[in-house]
Amino acid sequence: MEVNGPSEWRFQANRHLIAASSRCVRKVVGSLINSLGNEDERQAIFLGHGDPSVFPSFRTTVSAEDAVVNAIRSGKYNSYCKNLQGLLPARRAIAEELSRDLPYKLSADDVFLTSGCKHGIRSVAEVLAGPNANILLPRPGFPDYEAHASFYHLEFRLFNLLPEKGWEVDLQSVEALADHNTVAMVIINPNNPCGSVYTSHHLMKVAETARKLGIMVISDEAYATINFGENPFVPMGTFASVAPVITLGSVSKRLFVPGWRLGWLVTNDPNHILSKTGVVESLECCQIMTSDAATFLQGAIPEMIERTKEYEEFHSKVIKILRDTADICYAKIKDIPCLYCPYKPQGSMFMLVKLNLELLEEIHDDMEFCVKLVKEESVILLPGVALGLKNWVRISFATEPPTLEDGLDRLKVFCQRHFKK
Amino acid sequence: MEVNGPSEWRFQANRHLIAASSRCVRKVVGSLINSLGNEDERQAIFLGHGDPSVFPSFRTTVSAEDAVVNAIRSGKYNSYCKNLQGLLPARRAIAEELSRDLPYKLSADDVFLTSGCKHGIRSVAEVLAGPNANILLPRPGFPDYEAHASFYHLEFRLFNLLPEKGWEVDLQSVEALADHNTVAMVIINPNNPCGSVYTSHHLMKVAETARKLGIMVISDEAYATINFGENPFVPMGTFASVAPVITLGSVSKRLFVPGWRLGWLVTNDPNHILSKTGVVESLECCQIMTSDAATFLQGAIPEMIERTKEYEEFHSKVIKILRDTADICYAKIKDIPCLYCPYKPQGSMFMLVKLNLELLEEIHDDMEFCVKLVKEESVILLPGVALGLKNWVRISFATEPPTLEDGLDRLKVFCQRHFKK
Repeated sequence: MEVNGPSEWRFQANRHLIAASSRCVRKVVGSLINSLGNEDERQAIFLGHGDPSVFPSFRTTVSAEDAVVNAIRSGKYNSYCKNLQGLLPARRAIAEELSRDLPYKLSADDVFLTSGCKHGIRSVAEVLAGPNANILLPRPGFPDYEAHASFYHLEFRLFNLLPEKGWEVDLQSVEALADHNTVAMVIINPNNPCGSVYTSHHLMKVAETARKLGIMVISDEAYATINFGENPFVPMGTFASVAPVITLGSVSKRLFVPGWRLGWLVTNDPNHILSKTGVVESLECCQIMTSDAATFLQGAIPEMIERTKEYEEFHSKVIKILRDTADICYAKIKDIPCLYCPYKPQGSMFMLVKLNLELLEEIHDDMEFCVKLVKEESVILLPGVALGLKNWVRISFATEPPTLEDGLDRLKVFCQRHFKK
Repeated sequence: MEVNGPSEWRFQANRHLIAASSRCVRKVVGSLINSLGNEDERQAIFLGHGDPSVFPSFRTTVSAEDAVVNAIRSGKYNSYCKNLQGLLPARRAIAEELSRDLPYKLSADDVFLTSGCKHGIRSVAEVLAGPNANILLPRPGFPDYEAHASFYHLEFRLFNLLPEKGWEVDLQSVEALADHNTVAMVIINPNNPCGSVYTSHHLMKVAETARKLGIMVISDEAYATINFGENPFVPMGTFASVAPVITLGSVSKRLFVPGWRLGWLVTNDPNHILSKTGVVESLECCQIMTSDAATFLQGAIPEMIERTKEYEEFHSKVIKILRDTADICYAKIKDIPCLYCPYKPQGSMFMLVKLNLELLEEIHDDMEFCVKLVKEESVILLPGVALGLKNWVRISFATEPPTLEDGLDRLKVFCQRHFKK
């Protein structure tokens, strides 16, 4: 039989999806990596990422690997996970662990296992999207929130973080942006990309503002265990009786295994507002529609959490490294005239640095700075424009000290070379 | 500071998400499981699912477990996967494996790793959704397609499968439903829920129809390795030069480890139509926005595929079991007067059975049949209404033979008890 081909195919690109995804950190870093020149014989140095797991010093604990291997070898976790929110023992273990720092007890029902924090970010956007709804996001922030909000037609409005106040939330700008369609505000603590750790006092103010506005707080606590400065980490859930809080966290960051794709979304809701309003039901439905984390990874969680001794040793070791590399980074940046860092990081893996473009020749913005830096020195930083803050750059100091020093020395040479005569 | 509580909270349930998710198989089976009574002391028998991995006979190969354990112990796969489509060696191994049955060679660039087939289904809906676009889905079918299409506002139209023709696609109804906004049609082969395996001739006709309409074919081949009847499995990609094909498949079903959440989406596109129209770019962007499978699972794929000898032994064993259980199921159903099965399964794990409600007392539809069966006999079947076919039921025969026989005997007793006097 002869078949006539169609004059045209009916399907086409999804421009909305393409536009939304272009905001993701992964896309920006990917395009910079593609700019790497072949001329430079030196190894490329990645200071643009949040993933130090490739370095031997950050290799996760044997006990974490054991937990996963034991779960696989048991043969008990080859099936689909029957529970929508995730395996009960895993959720119970996470609820107990997180409750240690809270004024009330979380239950396993408050915990939804996710395939990494990214899944949690997506779920938040998916659940909160609704006719005319809007969400308040921090600037600078983590652009994947904007990507998902935009994809789900959830309007986002950006409030400022204040560099001169330790990158605290500008609560006045939050109040000014909110209207009766605002449903939530996002905070990231310890902060990516600023490296700040919020005080209990500031978090209380955030909760009071949220209550006044009638909105919930989404608290991205992926870096909860990574703080090394004077402010102790306080979970936002501490103030959940003032306004309901959804917390995002991950095993992946706690154990420095982001590739394991294992995280959680937790409702901190002692007054049952999220369940009464149907947000909890929506979260459950969201879980139905999404692939969950591998069942054996869920099965491994209780053993991972129980073996605290090995974890604590590992944790002390990496925190010491990060405290040192934050010091190195801060000191070296101070020594480069065209760069300015207003805040020495106390947590996460990042430092935010302002470019003084007036001192530089033929570099007109942060993107051009990063592209030329990649081409000339094979050093990758994240341009601030990707985080909503033009003419800043994010530097990750989660790297072995010699590599970091090498990278920052190259950055200095680069700045000197482009320094205005 | 005194804080005034809001007169109302601004956030609310996401009704659109809740409605879309209610179509998912998981939701229907979940609600039936909740109907299980406490009075019955016998063990519940699950014939509603597609996951036999809990049974010792279906325990996956040691070589598959080894591959994952080796990947974890290597410490090489703790990081985020840098490649949007998935690790290159994994994609290369899958491309080679799938190319063995195709008239052209797939490349690694054609393969997108997914977090199980579910992720692939979601991606298809996400990518194809667009203003006024519609997709053609089979009835009976797998309801998660409808759930995701509905969630992404991708209109779906149902074409019939013909029981009297071995559940082949009614191509006339496909042509009648399509218009200039139709972008794709979905086939499932080997078929869930019908157990049919399409002939090469029929697949060619499907491709010709798709070409005539200017649409692509989405071929869900999750059960590709599970066929045991007279029709050999032929991949839809065989006819991709007629119309472009996107194939969904999974390691999870091949190795009977659905909980591992590891699958693929493959573009079969020898004429580069999917890339020229921007569909490939949209798929890449979709990957950016979604959590991928754990990196170490991706890393384990080449070893899983290389160790074919162990796999082939395992595969022969389970296929033999499924051939036997399909026989048992078909024979036992034939022996129950109020049930009718028009087609003896040749593949997948399912059989579709029609209820003759006129012969039954006080059972008015398939849902009532299933709920009463759960309550009285602790046997779980999937009501056809969940698959778009009212007053049929789907029986999974992927179960140890004694359990299956017990379940079918209870089904018979149930039918006898409700038989009209």
